[in-house]
Amino acid sequence: MPLSSLPAVGVDLGGTNTKAALVDAESGVLFSRSAPTRAELGPDVVLDDIAELVRALMLDAGIEAVQGIGVGAPGAIDWERTTITQPPNIPGWGKVNLRTALRERLELPELPVIVENDANVAGLGSAYFGAGKPHDSFIMVTLGTGVGGAIIYQNQIFRGATGAAGELGHMTIDYEGPMPRSGVAGAIEGYIGQRLLSRYARYRLIHEDTLLHGMLGDDLEGLTPLHLFQAAEKGDEGAIEVLAWAGHKLGCVLGSAVNLLDIRTIIVGGGVSGAGPLLLDATRRTLPRYVVPALRGNLLVIRETLGNEVGTLGAAQLILQPLAERDS
Amino acid sequence: MPLSSLPAVGVDLGGTNTKAALVDAESGVLFSRSAPTRAELGPDVVLDDIAELVRALMLDAGIEAVQGIGVGAPGAIDWERTTITQPPNIPGWGKVNLRTALRERLELPELPVIVENDANVAGLGSAYFGAGKPHDSFIMVTLGTGVGGAIIYQNQIFRGATGAAGELGHMTIDYEGPMPRSGVAGAIEGYIGQRLLSRYARYRLIHEDTLLHGMLGDDLEGLTPLHLFQAAEKGDEGAIEVLAWAGHKLGCVLGSAVNLLDIRTIIVGGGVSGAGPLLLDATRRTLPRYVVPALRGNLLVIRETLGNEVGTLGAAQLILQPLAERDS
Repeated sequence: MPLSSLPAVGVDLGGTNTKAALVDAESGVLFSRSAPTRAELGPDVVLDDIAELVRALMLDAGIEAVQGIGVGAPGAIDWERTTITQPPNIPGWGKVNLRTALRERLELPELPVIVENDANVAGLGSAYFGAGKPHDSFIMVTLGTGVGGAIIYQNQIFRGATGAAGELGHMTIDYEGPMPRSGVAGAIEGYIGQRLLSRYARYRLIHEDTLLHGMLGDDLEGLTPLHLFQAAEKGDEGAIEVLAWAGHKLGCVLGSAVNLLDIRTIIVGGGVSGAGPLLLDATRRTLPRYVVPALRGNLLVIRETLGNEVGTLGAAQLILQPLAERDS
Repeated sequence: MPLSSLPAVGVDLGGTNTKAALVDAESGVLFSRSAPTRAELGPDVVLDDIAELVRALMLDAGIEAVQGIGVGAPGAIDWERTTITQPPNIPGWGKVNLRTALRERLELPELPVIVENDANVAGLGSAYFGAGKPHDSFIMVTLGTGVGGAIIYQNQIFRGATGAAGELGHMTIDYEGPMPRSGVAGAIEGYIGQRLLSRYARYRLIHEDTLLHGMLGDDLEGLTPLHLFQAAEKGDEGAIEVLAWAGHKLGCVLGSAVNLLDIRTIIVGGGVSGAGPLLLDATRRTLPRYVVPALRGNLLVIRETLGNEVGTLGAAQLILQPLAERDS
């Protein structure tokens, strides 16, 4: 069997869980597995666990070889796409060469292993298996704990000078705006990142008549975006307004991205995107107002509905794409 | 003589003047010529004039063939890079296929002719002949009547989905900021485009003790950025403050561009950039504050000192670069 017809393994290395899937270019996910990321035990244990997931998937499928392993990981990835440096949410990691580590553990010294930033990997997953399939180029936004992003240009990840392109969450929409942890005033993450959106919603609604009081008590302690969706779906006006407020802010920053990139298809994924039209209709209304008139045609904001799978699929796609593209 | 060793013609089609140069990849500009753009007489006359400039340059050099003609033009260029549509500053043009028109006029039906957006062309000129030479990737900002931009990525123009990428001037730095003609609230052009910067400076300084009163009279009518530089160079505090204010705003928008692109070299050209450190020192101070901490290393803001020549050189470079890249 030629190597290129074998399935590939995609690994989504998260701070809490590590997901892995055996993926075929045609059929998508064949088998998938997941295990807690035992970050507190150090890199060696985490790497052992990843190797174990790969072996288990090969057993699941009854195969003895894979085309390679793609890994989506948080934080900075080197230009050669082998090594991650101090991933956030995985404390105690300095610099770890995942290619070398996985080849050693699997005793496959030639195995293709490619590591890529997790936001970029989600973009690639969308491009080949999700909402991005019909589009050569798009901007991917991931609304989760933070606001992540990726640029897919002509079906490839646009990596920038060091592989970190797509940091949409840190683009400012108000140079004198609120200051999030990153220290970038008015960065969009400071409005619609999960923590700050939750805080905004709490303080905005705490004195209002809202269903959220019934769900969370008087002081709305513990409010999350999920509570907002639930209340909004029951028609709660305050929750609906906050989600539209967030969608409006997202439209502002996406306008700047469209102006700079001339890429007019936006794909929105991540947990907070689950709010769907409650959030994205406002984004669609706002976006053209922040785009130069000549580029206002054909703007498209769509949701990625693949969910978590987008990460393992995209990671596998790092391996599955033709060699010429893979090494570009 | 092989075609690839011939010089190329670069044409910079402006609203006021059309500049053309015969350019050699090694030596740069061999001969250059310029003529008023007789836009009011319609496209046919302008195209005749361009063809005449090309013929004159060939006579200057005593050659009977060129490798091709590259044209930098304002406005929207089609994806195939042959045709411009309704260029601003050249009223009455609908859609003009420059490739066909110039081939006909020069009776050279096979002549390579490539048209590209003028901001992109300036970026290419800087990349191959100017301040961009040592850098594979950079963001070019052109501070003139408007605020233009281009993205040079791995020595190529990043064109986006339709060739219009780089519209940095329309990126917002304040989603509720001042409204320029484009209708994008808080767009950087609304702060530091020539007209609005001049107006800001006038109203900010009109009631202050400034050298500008001696240059322009009590009401500072007719103030331009050039007056600001002249006064600032003589130590005028008000003018110095306004230029630093403009540089600060530029730093805010460049931060967003760096976050999105992970390209950390910025090259600033255009007339207003003539203010040099009076403007750009403030940009350098502000820029890192608007970039995510992980990308704050190696930020570089430099001036393009080639001046107008960057346009004709970049246009010629459209032809001079290797075929594989030219067609990408």
